[in-house]
Amino acid sequence: MRDTTAPEVVVRRLALYLRVLNAASLDDQEYISSQELGERAGISAAQIRKDLAFFGEFGKQGVGYEVQFLQGEIARILNVDRPVHFAIIGAGELGIALARYTQRRRQLEHGYPFWLSGLFDVDLEKIGQLVDGATIEHVDALPERVKQKGIRMALITVPAAAAQNAANSAVSAGVRAILNFAPARVSLPANVRLHDADVTLDLHHLAYFL
Amino acid sequence: MRDTTAPEVVVRRLALYLRVLNAASLDDQEYISSQELGERAGISAAQIRKDLAFFGEFGKQGVGYEVQFLQGEIARILNVDRPVHFAIIGAGELGIALARYTQRRRQLEHGYPFWLSGLFDVDLEKIGQLVDGATIEHVDALPERVKQKGIRMALITVPAAAAQNAANSAVSAGVRAILNFAPARVSLPANVRLHDADVTLDLHHLAYFL
Repeated sequence: MRDTTAPEVVVRRLALYLRVLNAASLDDQEYISSQELGERAGISAAQIRKDLAFFGEFGKQGVGYEVQFLQGEIARILNVDRPVHFAIIGAGELGIALARYTQRRRQLEHGYPFWLSGLFDVDLEKIGQLVDGATIEHVDALPERVKQKGIRMALITVPAAAAQNAANSAVSAGVRAILNFAPARVSLPANVRLHDADVTLDLHHLAYFL
Repeated sequence: MRDTTAPEVVVRRLALYLRVLNAASLDDQEYISSQELGERAGISAAQIRKDLAFFGEFGKQGVGYEVQFLQGEIARILNVDRPVHFAIIGAGELGIALARYTQRRRQLEHGYPFWLSGLFDVDLEKIGQLVDGATIEHVDALPERVKQKGIRMALITVPAAAAQNAANSAVSAGVRAILNFAPARVSLPANVRLHDADVTLDLHHLAYFL
């Protein structure tokens, strides 16, 4: 079903292209050339044509890409052509900031695909508190919420020592993709996708270029 | 001076190896095999040996790597063998969460290299407020603070519409590496390194694998 031959970097760039297309679509722009798409995404036009070729033929010679069509196609490829329900596990500062951020993005941007459908913690003092309309629940409620809301992704924002447990809870509840903000490696079954989002890794990566 | 032949993914993995080595060093572990390092970093032993070969010969046949030696070498390669002073531009929720997070990491982890040396905003109501010991200052103070504290990196956590301005301020103040959390592309001179850290890009990337 899924064409998995596209390299990770191409998938990453698709998300950048979609961001530009969303903005162009909001401006009622009908067509976009690979040159313009490239300038606005910070990628060369040749790279864009090469990236898109992994997935099909989307442009017309001399006209470029139809904005809404390409927007829809990339959204479909990235599985964001319908709401993606996600949970945040860990209602500390970072978890709450990410909850608010994604809630606000969804209010501001028509079609923002990521729906916060659960915010969890183990701290009894936090449970029941409201964060921009989301109620903090005990992590024991996760399996029920995953079934009820169709949650497929989880953001882990617990301390390092609790990350593996949080990830285990998410996986046994049926979550299939995890974005791990905790500064700890977690081990997961091969059928669960894991990305590291620890900002300290980003800082190290960036420092290399100083 | 800088060996720039190492691919981005290798640099990224170095940060993961360093995280494992820091933990091993804390446990007073003297040697680590590529197998153990691999298991703890979630990378194959063969990949680790290949990655490290970009930078030199660090292991001893049959003994593995000396933990403190390899830790020091990787820290040196990543330029984190001395404090890296950074600023956060944008004291909204995400900026404050990241300020607190990095301050706390530095308190908890001996040798955590990233020092928050400035937190900036343009909102006059925020200026003067304290965030875990850091005072929110007006962004106009950035050039002075960059010189005074030796700030080399900046995290941009302003709204999308303000991202380019914030980046311009950082660059003209002398910052040479930027981690952009705003959901907007910014253009920078070629000698400034830019990484995108917009969580929405991570979410799209992850959703592809659903």
